[in-house]
Amino acid sequence: MSYPFLKGHGTENDFVLLPDHDGSLHGDLPAERVRALCDRRAGIGADGVLRVIRTSAAPLVEALDAEWSMDYRNADGSLAEMCGNGIRVFTRHLVDEGLVHGDRPVRIATRDGVKTVTCDGDTSTVGIGTATVRGKTKVGVGDRSWSAIHVDAGNPHAVVMVEDLAEAGELLDEPAYDESLYPHGVNVEFVVRRGLGHVGMRVHERGSGETRSCGTGACAAAVATAPDGPGRWRVDVPGGTLHVSRDEAAEVYLTGPAVIIARGETNL
Amino acid sequence: MSYPFLKGHGTENDFVLLPDHDGSLHGDLPAERVRALCDRRAGIGADGVLRVIRTSAAPLVEALDAEWSMDYRNADGSLAEMCGNGIRVFTRHLVDEGLVHGDRPVRIATRDGVKTVTCDGDTSTVGIGTATVRGKTKVGVGDRSWSAIHVDAGNPHAVVMVEDLAEAGELLDEPAYDESLYPHGVNVEFVVRRGLGHVGMRVHERGSGETRSCGTGACAAAVATAPDGPGRWRVDVPGGTLHVSRDEAAEVYLTGPAVIIARGETNL
Repeated sequence: MSYPFLKGHGTENDFVLLPDHDGSLHGDLPAERVRALCDRRAGIGADGVLRVIRTSAAPLVEALDAEWSMDYRNADGSLAEMCGNGIRVFTRHLVDEGLVHGDRPVRIATRDGVKTVTCDGDTSTVGIGTATVRGKTKVGVGDRSWSAIHVDAGNPHAVVMVEDLAEAGELLDEPAYDESLYPHGVNVEFVVRRGLGHVGMRVHERGSGETRSCGTGACAAAVATAPDGPGRWRVDVPGGTLHVSRDEAAEVYLTGPAVIIARGETNL
Repeated sequence: MSYPFLKGHGTENDFVLLPDHDGSLHGDLPAERVRALCDRRAGIGADGVLRVIRTSAAPLVEALDAEWSMDYRNADGSLAEMCGNGIRVFTRHLVDEGLVHGDRPVRIATRDGVKTVTCDGDTSTVGIGTATVRGKTKVGVGDRSWSAIHVDAGNPHAVVMVEDLAEAGELLDEPAYDESLYPHGVNVEFVVRRGLGHVGMRVHERGSGETRSCGTGACAAAVATAPDGPGRWRVDVPGGTLHVSRDEAAEVYLTGPAVIIARGETNL
């Protein structure tokens, strides 16, 4: 069986997109297919898969008020609630295909509820909802451990403030974390302050390993430096630059580039 | 500009194929385009690019007696003479497209001369020419150094016999080598004996880093264990299993799987 795919990225957080508008092509999207697609040598290669499906055909989210649903999977095939870079790439694809109007905000259903994306050329902004500092926790890499800030940004984060991003070493393995606090895993951000409203970040994503960028991770990193009130931040990630803002109503917005770089067919 | 591509691999040594039959699409194929295509986050991702071009339109090899030429580039955009897995994937593509007959040996022009590929379903065999042990050299990784066997297999190799493939460590950087012996760089194989005619191998390819497999590297590893006479070897690489043989005339043959996993268009 051959089926269509696209590849795109936002600040080098990369995705295979699978158009499956009525859900008939990929059924429940088996984890093995996601892993085969995301394999960077034997497959196409990506940090995750974004299935493009009408909300009416999407399990778990069919009651949400949005025409399109982003069915996001991590590279290991596991489910995730939301993906801040993914949803921007996803919406870019919908606009490119004429499936939505790019000149007005687009509502997208996710397992973390409906998100709204606004496009402006190659750049787009998503309101990810609130990003809330919940308290403290601990994170470990090898023999080393750090105090961390527990942030809920739709998905769970642990933010470690460091003096130097090299402190976390090669980050080849998943960091150790408090499994009672994070029963479904956690994304871990290592964050360095670079100025007022300006941070640098590395991220280890559950299910994907260290990535070049993580959208909700950038939001978590930003709010960890200032838990309350309106604000604007620049977040440098290995794959580029993102911008984060928080308004009076505590809604957090993520802005950055989103591009589609290839389209085709595969039989993986 | 949007142009066609395919992705394929042989034992997880992966390639972007660029059909450009008359050479008009990619001109001299700028190194920046090769790097953009091979980028595993912002691009499609591959160990190298295989341009599919008629020999009559291909610079440097236009005098060779073969209809099709494999214009191979490393992931960093540099030229390479030959690629043992790449030429098998390349030929698989020609057969799939009906550009050659898969039921008889196919002649392919390369910068190392004409090679002949024989297909048998998903498996194919290429005669890489001779693979000749030239003497000894040294290779270093970090603080450690090893004696190595200098093998010329169309492209230059340094084969290090080790007790354990983990000896070379993470192999994130290019190994140190004798630049007077290898002015254009060298592929370094770390090889462990696993039985009679059976070895395991890791490889660091110049211009690509550690890869999951290297075809001429497998041939170099095999002949390094027995410099003369006919022989047959099984070579386990991280991405699968290759077979190498050498006949009475000292011609070395590489056999293994070759698959195309995706096709499409890109504007990279």
